[in-house]
Amino acid sequence: MGKNNLRFAFNVEFSLGSVLKLNVKWWGWGDLSRSYDLEGRKMFLKFLEDKLQCSGDVVQQPARVDSMKFPPMKADAAFVNSLNGIFGGENVRVDDMDRFLHSFGKGYLDLIRAWRGTPQLLPDVVLYPTNESQIAQLFDESANWDFVVVPYGGATTVVGGVSTRISDGQVAVCLDFRFMNKILSIDEKSLLADVQPGCLGPEVERALSSVGLTLGHFPQSFEFSSVGGWVATRGAGYESTRYGKIEDLVESVRLVTPQGTIETPHVPASAAGPDIRQILVGSEGAVGLITSVSLKLRKAPASKSYRGVIFRDFEDGVEAVRTMIQKDIVPNVIRLSNPSETEVSIALSRRNGGSYVEKVGAWFLKKRGYLGTDGALMILGFEGSPERVRFERRLALASCKPFGGFSLGEGPGRMWYKQRFELPYLRDELMKMGVLVDTLETATSWSRLSTLHLQIMAAFREAFEELRVSGFAMAHMSHVYRTGASLYFTFMAQQLIGHEEEEWHLIKNKVTDVIVTSGASLSHHHGIGLEHVKWMRQYWGPLGIRVLKSIKHELDPKGIMNPGKLLPPG
Amino acid sequence: MGKNNLRFAFNVEFSLGSVLKLNVKWWGWGDLSRSYDLEGRKMFLKFLEDKLQCSGDVVQQPARVDSMKFPPMKADAAFVNSLNGIFGGENVRVDDMDRFLHSFGKGYLDLIRAWRGTPQLLPDVVLYPTNESQIAQLFDESANWDFVVVPYGGATTVVGGVSTRISDGQVAVCLDFRFMNKILSIDEKSLLADVQPGCLGPEVERALSSVGLTLGHFPQSFEFSSVGGWVATRGAGYESTRYGKIEDLVESVRLVTPQGTIETPHVPASAAGPDIRQILVGSEGAVGLITSVSLKLRKAPASKSYRGVIFRDFEDGVEAVRTMIQKDIVPNVIRLSNPSETEVSIALSRRNGGSYVEKVGAWFLKKRGYLGTDGALMILGFEGSPERVRFERRLALASCKPFGGFSLGEGPGRMWYKQRFELPYLRDELMKMGVLVDTLETATSWSRLSTLHLQIMAAFREAFEELRVSGFAMAHMSHVYRTGASLYFTFMAQQLIGHEEEEWHLIKNKVTDVIVTSGASLSHHHGIGLEHVKWMRQYWGPLGIRVLKSIKHELDPKGIMNPGKLLPPG
Repeated sequence: MGKNNLRFAFNVEFSLGSVLKLNVKWWGWGDLSRSYDLEGRKMFLKFLEDKLQCSGDVVQQPARVDSMKFPPMKADAAFVNSLNGIFGGENVRVDDMDRFLHSFGKGYLDLIRAWRGTPQLLPDVVLYPTNESQIAQLFDESANWDFVVVPYGGATTVVGGVSTRISDGQVAVCLDFRFMNKILSIDEKSLLADVQPGCLGPEVERALSSVGLTLGHFPQSFEFSSVGGWVATRGAGYESTRYGKIEDLVESVRLVTPQGTIETPHVPASAAGPDIRQILVGSEGAVGLITSVSLKLRKAPASKSYRGVIFRDFEDGVEAVRTMIQKDIVPNVIRLSNPSETEVSIALSRRNGGSYVEKVGAWFLKKRGYLGTDGALMILGFEGSPERVRFERRLALASCKPFGGFSLGEGPGRMWYKQRFELPYLRDELMKMGVLVDTLETATSWSRLSTLHLQIMAAFREAFEELRVSGFAMAHMSHVYRTGASLYFTFMAQQLIGHEEEEWHLIKNKVTDVIVTSGASLSHHHGIGLEHVKWMRQYWGPLGIRVLKSIKHELDPKGIMNPGKLLPPG
Repeated sequence: MGKNNLRFAFNVEFSLGSVLKLNVKWWGWGDLSRSYDLEGRKMFLKFLEDKLQCSGDVVQQPARVDSMKFPPMKADAAFVNSLNGIFGGENVRVDDMDRFLHSFGKGYLDLIRAWRGTPQLLPDVVLYPTNESQIAQLFDESANWDFVVVPYGGATTVVGGVSTRISDGQVAVCLDFRFMNKILSIDEKSLLADVQPGCLGPEVERALSSVGLTLGHFPQSFEFSSVGGWVATRGAGYESTRYGKIEDLVESVRLVTPQGTIETPHVPASAAGPDIRQILVGSEGAVGLITSVSLKLRKAPASKSYRGVIFRDFEDGVEAVRTMIQKDIVPNVIRLSNPSETEVSIALSRRNGGSYVEKVGAWFLKKRGYLGTDGALMILGFEGSPERVRFERRLALASCKPFGGFSLGEGPGRMWYKQRFELPYLRDELMKMGVLVDTLETATSWSRLSTLHLQIMAAFREAFEELRVSGFAMAHMSHVYRTGASLYFTFMAQQLIGHEEEEWHLIKNKVTDVIVTSGASLSHHHGIGLEHVKWMRQYWGPLGIRVLKSIKHELDPKGIMNPGKLLPPG
């Protein structure tokens, strides 16, 4: 099968209903018109061959949607009728295609199931609400009908956030927020914007940049993920080191729950008891549906500067970053790759063997002790007024020097910035080649970070050995705090065809056990979804789970909100 | 009655049990050995005469404790015996003096009741726990005995945080945490310290400064307030603009509740569902007792610089600050007084009519249009590395210029810094002169701030008119955010002897109604205690209160924790 055949997916997309965007891949990442071009990246293809015994040939493709068999829609016709009355017929969809396409996100498990035509349970009805009152009316219908509700935003979840796990016979209603995507208001004086949950990243930033503002929240999923999803799962953008995670950017949040509407006060800070806002942020659709978020904005930066810095090893880089941040020098972006990720980054950056300049540069760095097997590449990004950028950059680079940090100038920085949303496209290509590929992340304090990094890398190796597959893991440190930082891992392995889910679970379980046992974050920014639920009790402790359940029970006494998510059963 | 007589309070203090500190005033603020010296402050005394018809004579004094009659202790002897078994006899106190001294904080109502010898209900037993297991054992006793638990830290609350409101016949147990005041550990690499709740501000900073670190949390109560109190009430220090409020400085918190122990993960950030930490921070002893807090530290600043800046009016200053903070220029301290507070500040700063230099300076400023009736004084503080202090100060002062901000140099800054913990002592002197004096505060967004400032000032005037008393209110803006700021009000009025509580409530109610109706913070950093409870439903909405109650019910099903606090009845 040749590479050209893979574009067959276009055909499927064109059979979709008009309410769905036609330009997004159902079987992979992002725009249908975009893919990660491996042409000429010999060094990376050689790396795949060496590490994963991967030939580079396309060995599989997604199943054809029109040949899939789906379980029948279970919703009562009278129920669908009342939904038609609330939402308008065109916004109530029960066709197989809509149901199938709303049954998964972008996690490896999601995609492999979709490729194989074996998705998790399909929702029975897909609704496209256009206003909040429709949602309240839907909840009113729960007095008459037995159904569960699953929210759906950009569906870029990598932890099973939109997959439905319901009991036999239960009717699942999926709410796709794509038409609740308005910027309701912008308060330029207070730097606040009230935004609907279905607004995607580019829609938010477009509206804000027209008045010289920015939210500054740029997760890797930025182009396709929604405000509601960010807030429901406590996402982080690549500039979170300076600008904070999304929970730091929410002034107020409004949800419709089965028990009514809750909106937190619109205040910059409060000592009026517990911060209810911070339990609604991160509630993952398990207590209600976010219908509006008041977001804290900032002035669009006048100047940006991204640099590459190389260290002789990861530990040097970690100490440089710790020293920097603890001296109150706070770049927008800090992203320090461990040696294996550095190796892959360099491999991916070389096309057709690399230019003469690149080769001379590499020779020079090798001679100085960098770029051996231990080299660690860092991207440092600064944004703001020109003089602040200059000031912070000077201090940051000076902080790197005592740890052997060698500035590579703006080249690597610019390249990273340009390609910062591109990497997920590579996964599609790797999956076609029969590679299991996924990411996971955590955060921990500085005193535990280096040990945890090594323990996780070892856990990956053990998992690959136990599975008897060739595998490869790499990591970077990013999202840096005074007290610690996040560690982000990408792992690849030969896919065990026919046992893809078991293979993935073995790796995921082994590594996550290490993370949670060490006391690190169960997730730093991916969220819980279905995939992290089983560690929630260990992570928060029995009393923490009881607190979450008491809130869930108060706002959703019948348990109709996003079943199986967030909270462990029982 | 002459001023010399007032030191009679010493005698009372000496009659107290040995476990109580002898150097703290029960009837007023702070150290017995310190008081606000009004000697030579003619301008301020004239101000009191003009605005409050206050003669400056001492017209009243606190009642003598040894002449007060207290209700009998209600705890069963067998219960006290079992408490002796848990805590050790010396840490279980049932004497009237201990009970009286643990029945109030430092709010105006607290003090006036104490002065009159009519405190709120007294606790029956005062316990001094020395470890967490004693607290767990106390909760075990709730199976055998009917009692309620009231936590007591530094007792600097100004909102009735330590007063007990219990039903007839209920036994109240007060836990004074002064002996759980250890720094358990300092992780210098991660900038974290595990601290017990009874640690007072100076104890925390002393331990940290010995290793070159600081917490950076300096509320006005700093010298006498405790870590547990800060965290339970979401306090703010004067440097919160740069360093954050206490809720931003808590990495993890541990509580013992009637249902067991809960400790949040020790992680720098998390996307593992709702942030339970932020509902325990601010829980005001209503769900459990904080037994340990992991605090985020920072390097002690190498350099400090405090400046005075004067604006022609408050609005100019507000706009200068908004512009500054929204350009990402973040001083440690921003404190902008409105014209009435500016007038009082200047009056208080002049001793014996002021020096020649001061007089010449004032003449100069008046000539340039400052220091009229509209002048607004600002304190700008910067801390950090010398070069950061220089950088931020230069940008901040440049931001003030377009708004007419005129730098007064370091003099006023140094004076403010030196006296930053002194102002509460002035209240004692004013109360002796028959003046009602208290403070309240809020926070709101920039677009509502100026209107709210005027509305609150008007509400004070209306209250004084309704009461037919001479009164005076003044304000400053501080604790500044990108989206808004806090407003802090001090108010004084002729005391209505015999009707002090009604007088205070009328003022407080009128102003707080304005605050809550406008959508501003019910409190920015004082907390809820008893005094703000009645606005909680309006502030959080019915569903918000249901969420808080569900958490309370889960952790404290019998409702024995700090009754009457935080949550509205019913």
